[in-house]
Amino acid sequence: MENNLITLKSSPKILSSYSVAGNKEHNGPLGNYYDEWCADDKFGKSSWEKAESEMQRRALRGALKKASLSDCDLDLILAGDLLNQCVSSTYGLADYNVPYLGLYGACSTCAESIALGACLFDGGIISKCGAITSSHYCSSERQFRYPLEYGGQRAPTAQWTTTGSGAFIIGEKGNVNIEQVMFGRIIDKGISDINNMGAAMAPAVIDTLVRYFDQSGTKPCDFDLIVTGDLGFEGSEIIKDLLLGEGIDVRKNHVDCGLMVFNRETQDVHAGGSGCGCSAIAMASTIIPNLSSGYLKDILFLGTGALMSPMTLFQGETIPAVAHLIRLTHSEE
Amino acid sequence: MENNLITLKSSPKILSSYSVAGNKEHNGPLGNYYDEWCADDKFGKSSWEKAESEMQRRALRGALKKASLSDCDLDLILAGDLLNQCVSSTYGLADYNVPYLGLYGACSTCAESIALGACLFDGGIISKCGAITSSHYCSSERQFRYPLEYGGQRAPTAQWTTTGSGAFIIGEKGNVNIEQVMFGRIIDKGISDINNMGAAMAPAVIDTLVRYFDQSGTKPCDFDLIVTGDLGFEGSEIIKDLLLGEGIDVRKNHVDCGLMVFNRETQDVHAGGSGCGCSAIAMASTIIPNLSSGYLKDILFLGTGALMSPMTLFQGETIPAVAHLIRLTHSEE
Repeated sequence: MENNLITLKSSPKILSSYSVAGNKEHNGPLGNYYDEWCADDKFGKSSWEKAESEMQRRALRGALKKASLSDCDLDLILAGDLLNQCVSSTYGLADYNVPYLGLYGACSTCAESIALGACLFDGGIISKCGAITSSHYCSSERQFRYPLEYGGQRAPTAQWTTTGSGAFIIGEKGNVNIEQVMFGRIIDKGISDINNMGAAMAPAVIDTLVRYFDQSGTKPCDFDLIVTGDLGFEGSEIIKDLLLGEGIDVRKNHVDCGLMVFNRETQDVHAGGSGCGCSAIAMASTIIPNLSSGYLKDILFLGTGALMSPMTLFQGETIPAVAHLIRLTHSEE
Repeated sequence: MENNLITLKSSPKILSSYSVAGNKEHNGPLGNYYDEWCADDKFGKSSWEKAESEMQRRALRGALKKASLSDCDLDLILAGDLLNQCVSSTYGLADYNVPYLGLYGACSTCAESIALGACLFDGGIISKCGAITSSHYCSSERQFRYPLEYGGQRAPTAQWTTTGSGAFIIGEKGNVNIEQVMFGRIIDKGISDINNMGAAMAPAVIDTLVRYFDQSGTKPCDFDLIVTGDLGFEGSEIIKDLLLGEGIDVRKNHVDCGLMVFNRETQDVHAGGSGCGCSAIAMASTIIPNLSSGYLKDILFLGTGALMSPMTLFQGETIPAVAHLIRLTHSEE
């Protein structure tokens, strides 16, 4: 491979997608589109972490059911989340009797899992796989920031971790084609503010998008949408400005999952949504169904992740980030 | 795929491997075989976490140099470690200008990264990639157990996290052939003792090995070695006993990386070594070179991971585990 653009020859498809959302997400702009939601953010479990695992369990079960499959039809599960040691995924998916690969790409994990599944399908390594990711506001807050009980004040640039899980089944049938994949490089431009992830991740999006347009010979207006997940308000403004400086105008068709999932005017989420679950539920509930129906024909999805930990920031490091790109098209089958 | 055994058609090879080890590891049985070691376990850095990143940086640099390659020859880096949010990998490898996928499989990550790289090569998705993993005794102890300063007493069944990093370059040339891959399922037999990971991981090894022998039509005596990484003394005894109950005798050719890296008689490591770096440095320093020279002809390598976090155990959960298998053979090129 001379460059890093991967064009998939065998047209892997997304067979089905399924979204499980929390209560605040249900009250947001995409509320009517989620396959399942729960008024109790504990999903009937005794801890936030167990609730997050339960969302993953339900998301995969739902995606399998939609595709009329059972777990024994899957060759592989690719999954990850934000919790230390990615435990939402391992505990949530342990009951499925399927080979399992754990991934960690922070909020880019949804894109990472779909892209990797598509590559493995294209190579003939698997014939069907599941890609599942999640995040939970309460488990993330206490792990990355403060326990909820502390009542810490949020910065205006901070994003709100989405409570949700999305599952995607990848295989040979369906109307949503995975055309191309470009994996991101680690980009660190020296941002160290844990309350401004959008700014830390924006340069990674720019790196991947500039490489993609260059290597694919496409331009922004070739796509119905350029979906990032999830830069929030700050990061979205930054990429639009900086890309314009490179002669690339994404102002007309850029949308961000962090801005789709919540209403910033009414839901007090500051810069918008974030977390592995944010792009997962936005894609599973809205973007993928619209590609399947043909309302959307050709889109780019960039999953963005901030790859620091609380400890690295305490030790004076800055925030490295990554953005993985997937080109999805409608296909008439 | 009717079953989960993946036979690679294009014969991906391990072009080079490189090991970076700590001081205690250098004083162990494989001490003379490591490519690089450091008397100061901080590797010249200001924290254990930064030292672990530095080991990964050096391991990849060394593996690239051995193969006469530079980072721009790589299409992809697959990496992971034990630290929260896998930060040893992201900070250690951020300087390499290569698309990056983060993995989390606990101590199975070394096998996961090599197996996934081989599958992506086999599918024509990449032509060369790096697989890098690490662990560090000091960063792991304070994250998973107690700060070193606390001086906690160790249980006899506890393993000692290895300080080390191993890097492997996968591509089309070389004398070490990656023949087959079988990804593991998540297996949880109800073990909840964080000081007995070997017992928690042993059932995952048995699940993968039994499926492998069944689906491949091979038997233990077909292989020069069956290498697990890393069950330690407890887990090794358990798999030998339980496999015998299934009519599978691995007593003659089973070795465990946790028992190779340290001398249990003289090094006070209790049940042996563990950590992503344990199988990484044992494979990179000893097993791979012996396969390359032809001293070993045909082996199985099973990377084993315990997929809990301290928090899940505090919340009363048991320890799920996974074991990924790779069959490696000598090839005359």
